[in-house]
Amino acid sequence: MTGKSSGAHQGSGAGRAHRAATWSTAITATTDERVFVRGVALDEAIGRESFPAMLLRLWRGDAVTDNEAELLDACLVASIDHGPLSPSALVTRTIASTRAAPMSGLAGGILAFGELHGAVVSRAMRILAGAPADGDLDAWADGVFERERAAERRLPGIGHRWHHHDLRAERLLEVASARSDGRHEAAVRALAARVSRHAGTSIPVNIDGALAVALTALRLDPAYGDFLFAIARSFGLAAHFVEEQARERPMRMIDPTAAEYDGAVVPGLELQEADE
Amino acid sequence: MTGKSSGAHQGSGAGRAHRAATWSTAITATTDERVFVRGVALDEAIGRESFPAMLLRLWRGDAVTDNEAELLDACLVASIDHGPLSPSALVTRTIASTRAAPMSGLAGGILAFGELHGAVVSRAMRILAGAPADGDLDAWADGVFERERAAERRLPGIGHRWHHHDLRAERLLEVASARSDGRHEAAVRALAARVSRHAGTSIPVNIDGALAVALTALRLDPAYGDFLFAIARSFGLAAHFVEEQARERPMRMIDPTAAEYDGAVVPGLELQEADE
Amino acid sequence: MTGKSSGAHQGSGAGRAHRAATWSTAITATTDERVFVRGVALDEAIGRESFPAMLLRLWRGDAVTDNEAELLDACLVASIDHGPLSPSALVTRTIASTRAAPMSGLAGGILAFGELHGAVVSRAMRILAGAPADGDLDAWADGVFERERAAERRLPGIGHRWHHHDLRAERLLEVASARSDGRHEAAVRALAARVSRHAGTSIPVNIDGALAVALTALRLDPAYGDFLFAIARSFGLAAHFVEEQARERPMRMIDPTAAEYDGAVVPGLELQEADE
Amino acid sequence: MTGKSSGAHQGSGAGRAHRAATWSTAITATTDERVFVRGVALDEAIGRESFPAMLLRLWRGDAVTDNEAELLDACLVASIDHGPLSPSALVTRTIASTRAAPMSGLAGGILAFGELHGAVVSRAMRILAGAPADGDLDAWADGVFERERAAERRLPGIGHRWHHHDLRAERLLEVASARSDGRHEAAVRALAARVSRHAGTSIPVNIDGALAVALTALRLDPAYGDFLFAIARSFGLAAHFVEEQARERPMRMIDPTAAEYDGAVVPGLELQEADE
Repeated sequence: MTGKSSGAHQGSGAGRAHRAATWSTAITATTDERVFVRGVALDEAIGRESFPAMLLRLWRGDAVTDNEAELLDACLVASIDHGPLSPSALVTRTIASTRAAPMSGLAGGILAFGELHGAVVSRAMRILAGAPADGDLDAWADGVFERERAAERRLPGIGHRWHHHDLRAERLLEVASARSDGRHEAAVRALAARVSRHAGTSIPVNIDGALAVALTALRLDPAYGDFLFAIARSFGLAAHFVEEQARERPMRMIDPTAAEYDGAVVPGLELQEADE
Repeated sequence: MTGKSSGAHQGSGAGRAHRAATWSTAITATTDERVFVRGVALDEAIGRESFPAMLLRLWRGDAVTDNEAELLDACLVASIDHGPLSPSALVTRTIASTRAAPMSGLAGGILAFGELHGAVVSRAMRILAGAPADGDLDAWADGVFERERAAERRLPGIGHRWHHHDLRAERLLEVASARSDGRHEAAVRALAARVSRHAGTSIPVNIDGALAVALTALRLDPAYGDFLFAIARSFGLAAHFVEEQARERPMRMIDPTAAEYDGAVVPGLELQEADE
Repeated sequence: MTGKSSGAHQGSGAGRAHRAATWSTAITATTDERVFVRGVALDEAIGRESFPAMLLRLWRGDAVTDNEAELLDACLVASIDHGPLSPSALVTRTIASTRAAPMSGLAGGILAFGELHGAVVSRAMRILAGAPADGDLDAWADGVFERERAAERRLPGIGHRWHHHDLRAERLLEVASARSDGRHEAAVRALAARVSRHAGTSIPVNIDGALAVALTALRLDPAYGDFLFAIARSFGLAAHFVEEQARERPMRMIDPTAAEYDGAVVPGLELQEADE
Repeated sequence: MTGKSSGAHQGSGAGRAHRAATWSTAITATTDERVFVRGVALDEAIGRESFPAMLLRLWRGDAVTDNEAELLDACLVASIDHGPLSPSALVTRTIASTRAAPMSGLAGGILAFGELHGAVVSRAMRILAGAPADGDLDAWADGVFERERAAERRLPGIGHRWHHHDLRAERLLEVASARSDGRHEAAVRALAARVSRHAGTSIPVNIDGALAVALTALRLDPAYGDFLFAIARSFGLAAHFVEEQARERPMRMIDPTAAEYDGAVVPGLELQEADE
């Protein structure tokens, strides 16, 4: 065989079957001078359209109201960091300590977003999408609860291993309720009530559940739920990477439970310390 | 040996040497109810502090002005996407086509940010940090140009393989100049002039160079330059992942040059088409 | 709050709940001079125990026969590469073309092993583990076929998009049958027969199915199935990374269907070319 | 603009500039029935050619002797695992604990191979490639030592943070010396002598250095050095992933220094324990 005339895969039918075809994208077009995202020139948007508005346009493809952009902004703020005990932050710090490249630390941390940490917002959104517009939310919550239990899946959006009550989630639900009809908040609260009844104690909506309510109100494809959380949190991962390399010696052993906070004063923490 | 009393690594000195020590972080503290980022409770920031302001606080650790938050917002908008021809977008789409998990597509795309694509903002910031406050910028630019050339490194922030003239960069420099003393813009323009003289044609400042000017004006640690670009672009990667799975069949062969744009109308493109 | 005495997470119960506990591992122990894998000193194994034998010991934890090591060796050879059209190879090459780091190219390629490419051997092993030792394999195959179909899952181990008939799979089954009782080969062939009946044409066992038979015969935990394939293939990904950086210019557009083979002579290919 | 006739990037010169061209690969060719790696049909190699022989053929492109295959086999054995204290194993375990996908755990662990852990064999090979065939190795070692020191780079291949003396390295050098002319072993020992003189104590060749000697003797492109180590170690990472999910509860806090070994008996360890 000579290399000149033959492809890397030879064969009668197969060759044609996997020939690359023309394909289409509706996201971005570029010219020699400009980049158009969903039809908007970035050079015109820079300094004029807010980032949350541009992001919602990118992900949803249609025009965005100020109200909507503010709600997405709130979702980004809510997700930005959760401290050094998160598996993702630990992975990023461990990679940073080997003096590997920044992108390695970032990608590694993102890979720690699994079914139990981070990557559950999309699933919560898909569940909420099934909530009846006019109907018995308690009956719906019963059904969801039984179905997830039968499948041995953890119900997403409810409860947290550390936070008995998570003020981020409460506040984000409040911000979302001012910008939507409240239907998805009612649905997630019905799920929390169902779980609480089962547990015999009050189990709150967590940050994943609140994000799912907000992003559903914003009419985003549920596929974006995990991306929103993971990418917003990536800004936090970057902070852990940079701090690790700036403050710690290379190749150290990181005991996550031995971390002490020595940053800006947090008044509430002193009181709690006194309680112990 | 019994497992009860012995560590996974045995030895006289070595055992002590790599015992995990208490360590400190100034980024985030959590309580049972709250998450404090740089001393600010996220539940209080949600819906009140803009995301770019919160991000600058996270990365810089001190208080942020509205002017500064607006400049960081503009940097995020400028980086959000660059279409399906970028190596990172192609990697994300190829992974999406195998029906691998969203986080795999995101992490894979990020790993394509290398020395020639994406991961050059930090290096540009480190170069700009060396520009003299009061001094001969042309002499400084000569020195930088010769040093990078001797080291066989590509000078970051200048020129682009597709954009002869990039309006995003020009616009971002304009927004940055309104919020800073112009010193770093002058420095990057001196570099572009030096490169242009060498090339015998006008080579513009590119988006990496404009980002480096803006982020330096914001007093960010240069280590954050590549993270800012990569994470902002990750929102675009998510759009490519979702579109790929929604519109295309699994395991297709993706010829990047066979992509056609079929999204929202972009008026300028028609004219250009007629020119061809 | 002062950082001196408080942890990064404060709280009554929570603090205790997530304190790191002593934990155990049965894989590897190290001393100042030696590394013991499953109780075997690597310095003694080097040059004396073959790599496939050591690998099977590492993954299975008990002693290994020569016959078993030879079968695992055959599995590694069968998986080593599949050319530049594989999504994983394309991802690795695209990352290589940006001049990103070797580990980025490798990790990126691995992330392309999804449900439709590579990461299906474990699932096939779990299905084969359910085949009856003494019983009606056709009835079992009917049941598996219907169950996977109802769940809208692709049955792993059967059929290939390019290879109508895959000699690697046939040969690996042959090698495996000489080293096992043939029960799992019979099971996978029953599945292929069931699929063929449904399709109205002969659909062969593919390389994933053959690997599942061999690795099940080796008594490996099914969790190792995807790892075996992915890591063996990683050696191929490395070859694509190195060739890409050695032969191609940076940041090129890679059309996977435009690849031509120009390596060592492959006699069979000439005939086929003449057929077209 | 209509999507029908325009590409995703419009422009006079640019469009042509980044059109995908035909390209060549010498690694692998596929037909409908077969896969040929470096001209060898995998179906013929399975069960006949050993994996290390096939791997060396894949990476080097030419025929392989038994002696060579045995040396590469020894390199794979030497690299297979190093226990739970390695940053890469910790990353893989942390990701496993979130119940993320196996490929995520594997890719994440690989990303922890940085300049200080794992990814130094290629650099050591490049240094050894410069050793004079007939000349003063001590003078060469002096030069290398001073150059790396001036560049503030750690000299690869010499010394280890835990192992004062590493029997794996000694044994691998012994196996390599029986299969080569000893020139590269002499070179790495000259480097170790130079470092020892500087440190005022004996610093041994480490496993990276021994791998560099062996892989150089095998005439491999230095680019493969880091890949060999990282991929061989990936088999160990898989063992940590599987053990973590089998033995530990999800989302645990992993203190790397709290690991206890409870595997197969390792006689030497008891004595050492008694010494403490």
